[in-house]
Amino acid sequence: MSDTPQGTRPVDPPPALSGLRCLVLGGSGFLGLNLCNRLAEAGAEVTCFSRSHTQPALLDRRVARVTGQFADRLAIANAVDCQDVVFHLIAGSIPESSNRDPSAELAATPIATLHLLEICRSARIRKLVFASSGGAIYGVPGAIPIPERAPTDPISAYGIGKLMIEKALLLYRHLHGIDYQILRIANPYGRFQLGAKHQGLIGSYIHRVLTDQPLEVWGTGEVVRDFLHIDDVSDAFLAAVTYDGPHKVLNVGSGVGLSVNRIIAALEAAFGRDRLPCVYKPSRAADVPANVLDTALVRSELGWQPRVALRAGLVDTIAWMRAYLADAAGQHRET
Amino acid sequence: MSDTPQGTRPVDPPPALSGLRCLVLGGSGFLGLNLCNRLAEAGAEVTCFSRSHTQPALLDRRVARVTGQFADRLAIANAVDCQDVVFHLIAGSIPESSNRDPSAELAATPIATLHLLEICRSARIRKLVFASSGGAIYGVPGAIPIPERAPTDPISAYGIGKLMIEKALLLYRHLHGIDYQILRIANPYGRFQLGAKHQGLIGSYIHRVLTDQPLEVWGTGEVVRDFLHIDDVSDAFLAAVTYDGPHKVLNVGSGVGLSVNRIIAALEAAFGRDRLPCVYKPSRAADVPANVLDTALVRSELGWQPRVALRAGLVDTIAWMRAYLADAAGQHRET
Repeated sequence: MSDTPQGTRPVDPPPALSGLRCLVLGGSGFLGLNLCNRLAEAGAEVTCFSRSHTQPALLDRRVARVTGQFADRLAIANAVDCQDVVFHLIAGSIPESSNRDPSAELAATPIATLHLLEICRSARIRKLVFASSGGAIYGVPGAIPIPERAPTDPISAYGIGKLMIEKALLLYRHLHGIDYQILRIANPYGRFQLGAKHQGLIGSYIHRVLTDQPLEVWGTGEVVRDFLHIDDVSDAFLAAVTYDGPHKVLNVGSGVGLSVNRIIAALEAAFGRDRLPCVYKPSRAADVPANVLDTALVRSELGWQPRVALRAGLVDTIAWMRAYLADAAGQHRET
Repeated sequence: MSDTPQGTRPVDPPPALSGLRCLVLGGSGFLGLNLCNRLAEAGAEVTCFSRSHTQPALLDRRVARVTGQFADRLAIANAVDCQDVVFHLIAGSIPESSNRDPSAELAATPIATLHLLEICRSARIRKLVFASSGGAIYGVPGAIPIPERAPTDPISAYGIGKLMIEKALLLYRHLHGIDYQILRIANPYGRFQLGAKHQGLIGSYIHRVLTDQPLEVWGTGEVVRDFLHIDDVSDAFLAAVTYDGPHKVLNVGSGVGLSVNRIIAALEAAFGRDRLPCVYKPSRAADVPANVLDTALVRSELGWQPRVALRAGLVDTIAWMRAYLADAAGQHRET
């Protein structure tokens, strides 16, 4: 990773996506908002499909908004109609909570994805790009970094759901020739990650610091994760659209493992604080001790590499969340 | 495989299962009827759970019968209560038909299995033994014979459903300590396989010969499969009950690949016919060109090996089906 003095925005021009009709399912989530905006900047005709559009100001004005449930087949069929590329970014829940009711987790998004595949088959879309989870799909890894060919033994229903969807994509390509790309994404962080929902360690930590709460550490803080800035994730999504090589499953990560304690130290530096207060809690059953992805394949196949250094990424994310919270507080005072 | 002159029944005494309370889910199917009877002979207290008991005469009189739907949680909870071991032998459909409606396939048996796991967790059963599919779970194999660590890329919704269930078992062991054993079973054949339902090539072929219909061959007949007599499958189920080694997934197959044309030749010999008439049909999308399981692990871990030679197994199966059809015809005349 190299530092980018001009900020966290990638320097390369985006691929030629001008006029490409792109549907982003789950477009109002953290990954979705960033991807919609990047696609719009690249000249694509973007539709953001979401069950709710609670943060309309975050979305580029050129992006069309459609509200609907993923399980609503008619709504999905209407949204998919006439699209070139469909991005599937819908996650049912998060790994930890998914284990409270595994059958509900698997009966929801994975089953609805099979309906989506039937719809994509009829609509003859060019490609389906799926956001899988590099953190959840491998389970407890036998070795670090984890290559794509490693065993996939998730320890959360969330991870099993992601695996089911991967296998369903492979099945529909085999049976009906639908093209797809799976990106197994590491732990993304950056703007639009709303820390209050506990989605993502870095977003949650920055939110807690800015709202004067201690950082929650599960276990000893020696759990190792692979953190990647959201702009690098968006880069990989855009590169996946035009990729036509044989590797349908690609890891997307920083290639570097950092412990939670290292992240806390980096946040202390980024905030200019000597010590951020922490509270320690028991380890969670859905947490694997270490997860770092082997990214040799995505680097060679997509010509992709992470561009945003951790320090710059943290500073950028802190600045965004500070402004976001100030804005929200201002709106609150106005009402 | 060695010939057993005294017939197809294994010669070794069954393991000491005396008094063990065993529930067989899907007990009225081909695998289930054979397993229920073998368990009863071994002294276990057996309950056969099935949506219907259409062939009551085939089941040992010592086996208790419970009728219910697998999706009926209350019926399953009642059946699981006070059992020691649960055998899960329920399959939603067959590979080919599962691809007509993949979402229905995956929403049925796999989701109901997650409810079963919750019930087993509360009931503190000792072990769950699952009949997975050595034929469907690997998809198109990269090499033959297929070891357990090979990629699992099913080309049928049926196979994806089996994989989901395997992953759910692993999850529940990780979260709640439920012990399990997965047997990835090759193509079983033998008594109680009712060929009219098109379940299993050998059963279907024997049924067609005995009812004067030509054999249906998909493709050129050079598709290779791993055929295993049902008594060898039952042996493996019984051995799995007491196995407490580390390998939770074991292939169960003959270790020998035979083409459909070789099976037809073996049937011609077993029937004493020069040539059995065949009709040729296009290859099916859910058929892989070859499937032979590597059985080194099950042999070393369970001390199991197939005992029934193909010739003896075919002769035995033909004799059983001839008697069964004569009996059915007799009953038909009486009504």
